[in-house]
Amino acid sequence: MRHILHTWTGMIEPELRSWRRDLHQMAEVGFCEYVTTYYIYQKLKDLNFSLYIGQDALDSNARYGVPTDQVLREHEERALEQGVPEDFLDQIRGGHTGVVATLDTGKPGKHMAFRFDIDALPIVEADEIEHIPSSEGFRSLNEGMMHACGHDGHTAIGLGLARFIYQHQDQLTGSFTLLFQPAEEGSRGANAMVQKGWLDNVDLFLSGHLGIQPLPVGTVVAASTSILATTKIDVSITGQTAHAGMSPHEGRNALIAGSAMVLALHGIAPHGDGVTRINVGRMEGGSGRNIVPGEAFLQLETRGTSTRENAYMKEEAIRRIEGAAQMYGVNVNYSIVGEGISAETDDYWRKQIPLVLAKSTVVKQVQSELALNGSEDVTYMMRRVQDTGGAAAYLIYGTPLAAGHHHRRFDYDESTLAVAVNALAYLICAESGEGALQQ
Amino acid sequence: MRHILHTWTGMIEPELRSWRRDLHQMAEVGFCEYVTTYYIYQKLKDLNFSLYIGQDALDSNARYGVPTDQVLREHEERALEQGVPEDFLDQIRGGHTGVVATLDTGKPGKHMAFRFDIDALPIVEADEIEHIPSSEGFRSLNEGMMHACGHDGHTAIGLGLARFIYQHQDQLTGSFTLLFQPAEEGSRGANAMVQKGWLDNVDLFLSGHLGIQPLPVGTVVAASTSILATTKIDVSITGQTAHAGMSPHEGRNALIAGSAMVLALHGIAPHGDGVTRINVGRMEGGSGRNIVPGEAFLQLETRGTSTRENAYMKEEAIRRIEGAAQMYGVNVNYSIVGEGISAETDDYWRKQIPLVLAKSTVVKQVQSELALNGSEDVTYMMRRVQDTGGAAAYLIYGTPLAAGHHHRRFDYDESTLAVAVNALAYLICAESGEGALQQ
Amino acid sequence: MRHILHTWTGMIEPELRSWRRDLHQMAEVGFCEYVTTYYIYQKLKDLNFSLYIGQDALDSNARYGVPTDQVLREHEERALEQGVPEDFLDQIRGGHTGVVATLDTGKPGKHMAFRFDIDALPIVEADEIEHIPSSEGFRSLNEGMMHACGHDGHTAIGLGLARFIYQHQDQLTGSFTLLFQPAEEGSRGANAMVQKGWLDNVDLFLSGHLGIQPLPVGTVVAASTSILATTKIDVSITGQTAHAGMSPHEGRNALIAGSAMVLALHGIAPHGDGVTRINVGRMEGGSGRNIVPGEAFLQLETRGTSTRENAYMKEEAIRRIEGAAQMYGVNVNYSIVGEGISAETDDYWRKQIPLVLAKSTVVKQVQSELALNGSEDVTYMMRRVQDTGGAAAYLIYGTPLAAGHHHRRFDYDESTLAVAVNALAYLICAESGEGALQQ
Amino acid sequence: MRHILHTWTGMIEPELRSWRRDLHQMAEVGFCEYVTTYYIYQKLKDLNFSLYIGQDALDSNARYGVPTDQVLREHEERALEQGVPEDFLDQIRGGHTGVVATLDTGKPGKHMAFRFDIDALPIVEADEIEHIPSSEGFRSLNEGMMHACGHDGHTAIGLGLARFIYQHQDQLTGSFTLLFQPAEEGSRGANAMVQKGWLDNVDLFLSGHLGIQPLPVGTVVAASTSILATTKIDVSITGQTAHAGMSPHEGRNALIAGSAMVLALHGIAPHGDGVTRINVGRMEGGSGRNIVPGEAFLQLETRGTSTRENAYMKEEAIRRIEGAAQMYGVNVNYSIVGEGISAETDDYWRKQIPLVLAKSTVVKQVQSELALNGSEDVTYMMRRVQDTGGAAAYLIYGTPLAAGHHHRRFDYDESTLAVAVNALAYLICAESGEGALQQ
Repeated sequence: MRHILHTWTGMIEPELRSWRRDLHQMAEVGFCEYVTTYYIYQKLKDLNFSLYIGQDALDSNARYGVPTDQVLREHEERALEQGVPEDFLDQIRGGHTGVVATLDTGKPGKHMAFRFDIDALPIVEADEIEHIPSSEGFRSLNEGMMHACGHDGHTAIGLGLARFIYQHQDQLTGSFTLLFQPAEEGSRGANAMVQKGWLDNVDLFLSGHLGIQPLPVGTVVAASTSILATTKIDVSITGQTAHAGMSPHEGRNALIAGSAMVLALHGIAPHGDGVTRINVGRMEGGSGRNIVPGEAFLQLETRGTSTRENAYMKEEAIRRIEGAAQMYGVNVNYSIVGEGISAETDDYWRKQIPLVLAKSTVVKQVQSELALNGSEDVTYMMRRVQDTGGAAAYLIYGTPLAAGHHHRRFDYDESTLAVAVNALAYLICAESGEGALQQ
Repeated sequence: MRHILHTWTGMIEPELRSWRRDLHQMAEVGFCEYVTTYYIYQKLKDLNFSLYIGQDALDSNARYGVPTDQVLREHEERALEQGVPEDFLDQIRGGHTGVVATLDTGKPGKHMAFRFDIDALPIVEADEIEHIPSSEGFRSLNEGMMHACGHDGHTAIGLGLARFIYQHQDQLTGSFTLLFQPAEEGSRGANAMVQKGWLDNVDLFLSGHLGIQPLPVGTVVAASTSILATTKIDVSITGQTAHAGMSPHEGRNALIAGSAMVLALHGIAPHGDGVTRINVGRMEGGSGRNIVPGEAFLQLETRGTSTRENAYMKEEAIRRIEGAAQMYGVNVNYSIVGEGISAETDDYWRKQIPLVLAKSTVVKQVQSELALNGSEDVTYMMRRVQDTGGAAAYLIYGTPLAAGHHHRRFDYDESTLAVAVNALAYLICAESGEGALQQ
Repeated sequence: MRHILHTWTGMIEPELRSWRRDLHQMAEVGFCEYVTTYYIYQKLKDLNFSLYIGQDALDSNARYGVPTDQVLREHEERALEQGVPEDFLDQIRGGHTGVVATLDTGKPGKHMAFRFDIDALPIVEADEIEHIPSSEGFRSLNEGMMHACGHDGHTAIGLGLARFIYQHQDQLTGSFTLLFQPAEEGSRGANAMVQKGWLDNVDLFLSGHLGIQPLPVGTVVAASTSILATTKIDVSITGQTAHAGMSPHEGRNALIAGSAMVLALHGIAPHGDGVTRINVGRMEGGSGRNIVPGEAFLQLETRGTSTRENAYMKEEAIRRIEGAAQMYGVNVNYSIVGEGISAETDDYWRKQIPLVLAKSTVVKQVQSELALNGSEDVTYMMRRVQDTGGAAAYLIYGTPLAAGHHHRRFDYDESTLAVAVNALAYLICAESGEGALQQ
Repeated sequence: MRHILHTWTGMIEPELRSWRRDLHQMAEVGFCEYVTTYYIYQKLKDLNFSLYIGQDALDSNARYGVPTDQVLREHEERALEQGVPEDFLDQIRGGHTGVVATLDTGKPGKHMAFRFDIDALPIVEADEIEHIPSSEGFRSLNEGMMHACGHDGHTAIGLGLARFIYQHQDQLTGSFTLLFQPAEEGSRGANAMVQKGWLDNVDLFLSGHLGIQPLPVGTVVAASTSILATTKIDVSITGQTAHAGMSPHEGRNALIAGSAMVLALHGIAPHGDGVTRINVGRMEGGSGRNIVPGEAFLQLETRGTSTRENAYMKEEAIRRIEGAAQMYGVNVNYSIVGEGISAETDDYWRKQIPLVLAKSTVVKQVQSELALNGSEDVTYMMRRVQDTGGAAAYLIYGTPLAAGHHHRRFDYDESTLAVAVNALAYLICAESGEGALQQ
């Protein structure tokens, strides 16, 4: 099997690269992955999987932070222009993106589930010659949206793994679920798939991320630690417009209040017992240059090592939001638009992964753990699997990085994609192979 | 004549009100007044005036702060939808809005010019029942644009005055120029008309504003003082995006820099020798909640009693903009997108206006002066007239105000419109009437 | 008389200069003017005035912002070291500084009162060679206290005027009260003299200030306008100390709260209807470098053209103080430690002063008015005089200025002192002279 | 020996408690520990140690952050009043506090060194009844100085250990150095002892801290991790005073600049790779309420897991300090007044401590490590020992805490003192005992 997998990995590699580049070009932000969803669907439709899309794939009401109808409509227009057939689009309109693919071998065995996130970020991608997607012609076609977190690669890994399962289904046992999840950024999509029940009967769950820290290609980390709990907050400030020259004293300046919030929020003291984070990722306020700004809006997030540290940050953030509003005599409303929990890789996988991957010729090194220091709504899936008796792991696939995650020049070594597929395939063989790993 | 004007004023009043309400509904921001321009053109086209639009009315390159092509195109689309014929629109596309109307009586006499500004503000108009435009059904049809500074009334006054000149041209001498100017807000449009030469041979210039301070209808102020010099500045900040959880230290936060600018700009010490103002009317920054904001944009303005005080504010503002950028390690670019000068009403008019208006039965009281404490790019016109030997005045037409200028519930008593037309007509008769004022 | 006064002015000038330099050297801040009080007392004691000091001069409880007992004791120590006899000091201990001097001519006539403020500022005086008090050897002996507002000159003028009254008492009628008032800075001392009743039966009241704007020596301004209403506020913030390294989240940072207050207070929008000011003149907070600051203190003031504008500033300031405290989860207490009202020079004096001073050969020019744009607790005295039927004026004595008031290089032309004494003497002669001005 | 030490520990406990309470009452801040130094000297002088004080104990020029001469003189005055003999004081004047005690057994063996820090913090101690030092009558006699970090206990432990060595010197081998170090707070004193050479020939070095995290009495932690590298910075801002009412525009407000610094410094993004901290522990600015503040001073510190993270914080801090100065047009000077490095407990001690302490009946539990997340200039000593071939450890002595370190209600269970002495005595016996531990 070692030999077979080595060869198979070599064969799939060019396709992984090609898929990744296609996906990179079609970068779409959360719940707007219409073209991406169609692309995934097309790639899977002949592989013997049962495919679920739209409200069959996720629970509409369990999504967080769905864009406004108008934004969704604009993206749906775009998807039509970019070639998604109208009848397909009709099934996923309204932000019901993502695909669930299931395959039952018909043989008794474990139920293994895998999750791949598919969304991009609202970043204008670099167009410098040093940026390979730019120089090699696969820069995002959607200006202002960019795969700057590697989910294009994750999706390609998922497609590769689907191919592996399809091609080797006779040698495999049990059943498989592949979750192509929308809207990971902002911790918005995972829970909608959880609430649909896809994780309720899973024995073994695997997901992962490429990059995180610069590591050599060939390195796989068995367990991410420090997946931070997080809260996503939207803030809306309402003041009072006034003529900025004649009667500034009649205004209630919502933009100054917002600016004071930004400074105060970023000044929350770190928690002494763990990692804490805050980010106001977006603010806008005011309408015209000579008008005292009457409105402002902020989008922010807090994070913490565990629920306790995140709760501290959240409480402090709300105190500052309310205090700044009082300070400037404006009204403020805030709403929680997303929450992520923390989760841990199970001991089962912590032991099993190094043992299994030691046999791979493609995986050169297995590192036992690495701190993510980020949030990931995969934690909802991990918790559900763990709560129903299964075991979950979140791996990291090593690669050098051209720039950090969420950077406009983010890029990675595509050869890590084959390593990831190889690793997951090895784990499938070990857990669900019909004696496939006997050598 | 007193009798005739009294009667004429009474007859025109319902039309002034009707025009004003039409204009209020079609509120359009600066250089996007396509529908408004068409409306004015239609009202004037049968009145014997020569009409100039597009690049015949203003110098394209002398405009400040023209919106981006995309914004202009969206407004042009809207104008087509709202009924502006394509061939008319073609003459004014690209933000070449406004109308100049001239009429020569063929008789020797003075050249009098009048200016009326026509643009609205980017404010969402109130829809409470107490707001008369809402309760009486003439609230803005263009959500997010509102006549909150009375330019709908100014335009209606201009249309009324055109009617007066047309109807009484046989009794008048000399020539008349009516300037329906776009983009007063932001001090962006006046200079483009000045550069086209319309003010080069003007003997007497009049413009004015309704409201400013709550005054009884019937009161006319002969001279606005404290028309503030102003500078309009756009600021663009470029930092560096980064993953807000994993590597916040790799970011360069443009939004925090912008927020620090907002607080610092509004904290500039007032000048001890006169009135000074600053307003950051708009800021936006950041792209996504979990991304360290890499970009931010601000729109601001400074003002001062005279060039000296405004120069102080401008210099301090730039210092703070550059200092905040250094503080947060981000790059900053700023550009001056508008400048307004100060100007004074001439002594000629200061003496003449009270004398002439004392005869009107509609004007109840003439106040000698009132501080505007605002900026007005009419100053470019006044200065040009004064520099070429003419006399200029900027009047104020009294009215109670439902709320201050630029407030979403701004409104005024429409009966001031007839007072304004009456006052201007009296001044025309006094200066260019063929013995019309002899009684 | 014109001749006599001219000659007398010339003779007193060297003494004015000498007294001023003595006083400059002994600069003492409000309610700590122990040495200054003793100096004034010594200069007056042989001039036939009845002298009142300590609680005979002012109402102890009507003082605002008296320093703490410890501070007062330190200054009393200093006064002893600097030569104030213990038995004299005992009469004025506890911040009961200042002198009231009265002289009754025994002849019927008006009761004229004059006020001279005697306190210095907490400023380290310049020691550059360009600073005349430094180069000519009369720089403040009390490091950290400086006559940077000219009250040394005011006091010298008062001593000169006392000499004039003493020397010419046979030619004068009515009675005279000279108020050497402590603690004008901060609007803290005047009311305590008012409450003692000194202004209850005054027919004519005069006070004044040298400088304000650079004017030629010889110019006297009859009436200061824009004496701003003011409120003085002390703010005390209590947070919670914590170890800044181990447990920053357990702290409640009073210094950050104070810093946010400073920025927010200086960002209060100016009032559109008049002059407004705010100044946080002092802040301190925190105890040690590695301790989260648990306490902070601020001293601030608001000002406004009239009570209305000042009330707006005060209300906004308190809102920001309370809001910032909420923002950072700290407790805050504020107290009003001084309030100044606005007052106007009476029409009587506005007419009389130019008429009378036109006769002086020393006063070269009388300007009718000048905006002070500052606060002055002399307004308490003016109001009391006006409320009890008298007339009050606040003059300005022109002089060039080396630097603005409260600047560490503040200095003025000492020859203005003789102009001031001459002007006041002329006004005395006009109002209370026994036909002295007949020529 | 186990038995002997158990008994001895029980006997010394009341004295430890008594010394600690004495020391708590005489709390003195860094380089001002005159009374404390005298107290330590008195307690040691009959114990056969050679004692070194003044410039014999530390290198005068290698001290960081020595208070100004005036502050030192005030504390020297206080020390005289509190009973320190003048001839003793003369030997330690000028901030040359601390004691070094050495004892050579005359027998071959290891050179063991122990460090105890003796300084207090500038905190006003709680006087609530719940605060035991207050209710039991040993609250600090020096208002504004408090042992809020347990150095009173450390000093008592040192005195106890000296007693142990003295009493058991016949059974011990090698030599002993006890360093009673001043000014640990602010990382200011350790290097001055290192530069004097005391650590150059040390085989085994031990120091430690009580508290840190609430742990049961009886627990000893073998190795503190995360002793943070740190930089201490003083900032001096010079602006320009001006009259806050008349000419605010002439001022350059140093206090606003300082406040902007405070907010900006506390807003530095945390480093993704480790712990980072910043604290502005003190700021003061401005001189008088109605004067635009011309000066401000800040004391701050940065910290980081390693030199790299601390260097990031320091660089960002300086950027913000300089940027804020540019922003407000003021001058700024900063100076590095202390730096602390990071250091690690040696493997030798990590293994040895648990083995040895397992034998103690007083130490109930040995924990292998605990993160300090604070800075400690003991790292200078540890590094010197390690660089010259010795082994160093930094222990933690468990105790519940009434409130966190640097909190005004900080307090601990005094019975931890005996545990600490017992632990150190056991380690002495194991390393330098003449077979003393054989049982």
